[in-house]
Amino acid sequence: MLENIRIVMVNTSHPGNIGAAARAMKNMSLQQLYLVDPLEFPSAEAASRATHAVDIINNAVVCPSLSSAIADCSLVIGTSARERNLNWVIEKPHQMALTALAQCQAVDAPVAIVFGRERTGLTNQELALCHRLVHIPTNPDCSSLNVAAAVQVIAYELFNTVQEYQTESFSTKPDGDDQAALAGQIQTLHQHLQQVMSEVEFFGSNNPENVMRRLQIFLNRAQPSRRELNILHGILTAMQRKL
Amino acid sequence: MLENIRIVMVNTSHPGNIGAAARAMKNMSLQQLYLVDPLEFPSAEAASRATHAVDIINNAVVCPSLSSAIADCSLVIGTSARERNLNWVIEKPHQMALTALAQCQAVDAPVAIVFGRERTGLTNQELALCHRLVHIPTNPDCSSLNVAAAVQVIAYELFNTVQEYQTESFSTKPDGDDQAALAGQIQTLHQHLQQVMSEVEFFGSNNPENVMRRLQIFLNRAQPSRRELNILHGILTAMQRKL
Repeated sequence: MLENIRIVMVNTSHPGNIGAAARAMKNMSLQQLYLVDPLEFPSAEAASRATHAVDIINNAVVCPSLSSAIADCSLVIGTSARERNLNWVIEKPHQMALTALAQCQAVDAPVAIVFGRERTGLTNQELALCHRLVHIPTNPDCSSLNVAAAVQVIAYELFNTVQEYQTESFSTKPDGDDQAALAGQIQTLHQHLQQVMSEVEFFGSNNPENVMRRLQIFLNRAQPSRRELNILHGILTAMQRKL
Repeated sequence: MLENIRIVMVNTSHPGNIGAAARAMKNMSLQQLYLVDPLEFPSAEAASRATHAVDIINNAVVCPSLSSAIADCSLVIGTSARERNLNWVIEKPHQMALTALAQCQAVDAPVAIVFGRERTGLTNQELALCHRLVHIPTNPDCSSLNVAAAVQVIAYELFNTVQEYQTESFSTKPDGDDQAALAGQIQTLHQHLQQVMSEVEFFGSNNPENVMRRLQIFLNRAQPSRRELNILHGILTAMQRKL
């Protein structure tokens, strides 16, 4: 199951952290590393910190944006050091691991776990692309983990949980259009919705950004199936036809 | 309870690992760092990698031998990457955390967790000073964790387990309109949606029942907040006005 887990590091500043993350991944049997706009990569320091995990560094996929790094994923989990006041599902690492592995069994597509910048984490726009969040509990007076250390904790929980998991029996496996939609398909629906909202003059003089981010979070939380997305597209198209 | 946990690093070669371990400790509310014969300490690199945890670096106690570092401890747990053929009690990290915390509650003396050299771990003589061992499960093809990453995993398990002791549930508690909507409020939205779908002739000659049930399941799964329901009602009303 772990081969479908994808670690996504966004805009990492220090190549040493990329190398240390790759090593942590390999120790825990993870393989897929995606790097969104890294500051310095390829890098000798990344390769040296990776030690036995140079293969992960050599196979790392560099992407220009988070949305391109997750478009083919069936579930996107963001890491967050802060508590968020929007209506997120926030899990602790062990619960997150159960969720991610269940998804890997149910849908044959990658599950992404997204790690933000060293100092500032993920932006609100990037968080809105995530379907749920994971928060590593920390000392409230010193809550900022090194990013490679955070990858280590998450990778450890996944590896550990897979071992628990393989011994237990399994839930129903939806197929065809009842499978979870991919992240890119949810984005397409979100764009269709925004288009119809414009056509019916929902926004007036207001900035659409805030409301659209809320709707994005809502859609991602719902984890719609492909069939459900088709129905929603159908409703929007029926509205457009009627106008 | 965590104030009585002591992290002991034996003969560490790279001062960066001491710094990274200190940071991992502070993030997880550990304070006591003992260094047995470190190769290079004090060190600017250790302080820099420690970031906000310089206090732990400054208060670190340097000892000439492992036995002097653990003399006042009530329990000594060694970390081991290999399985040992002697008759050790070897625990996984979560079980180790339960053991260590139970000991901290029972005896007012430190509990030491001992980490070996980067390349070679602990010697047999050093292991013989330990009361039991902890083994972090890893990929058998690549089992050697970075020593600071190992400190991170162990510190995380200790911090996490203390919280289990102290509190059960963990969730952000939204208030006002960010609270989860009531079932009846979701039903009202569902009815509003059906009405608009009728008005735009979505159903044609088909029975709406099947599609409406799917939408109901989708909405319920999403667990919308009151604010999100208000937005969705707003979109539907804007559409009706436009028609």
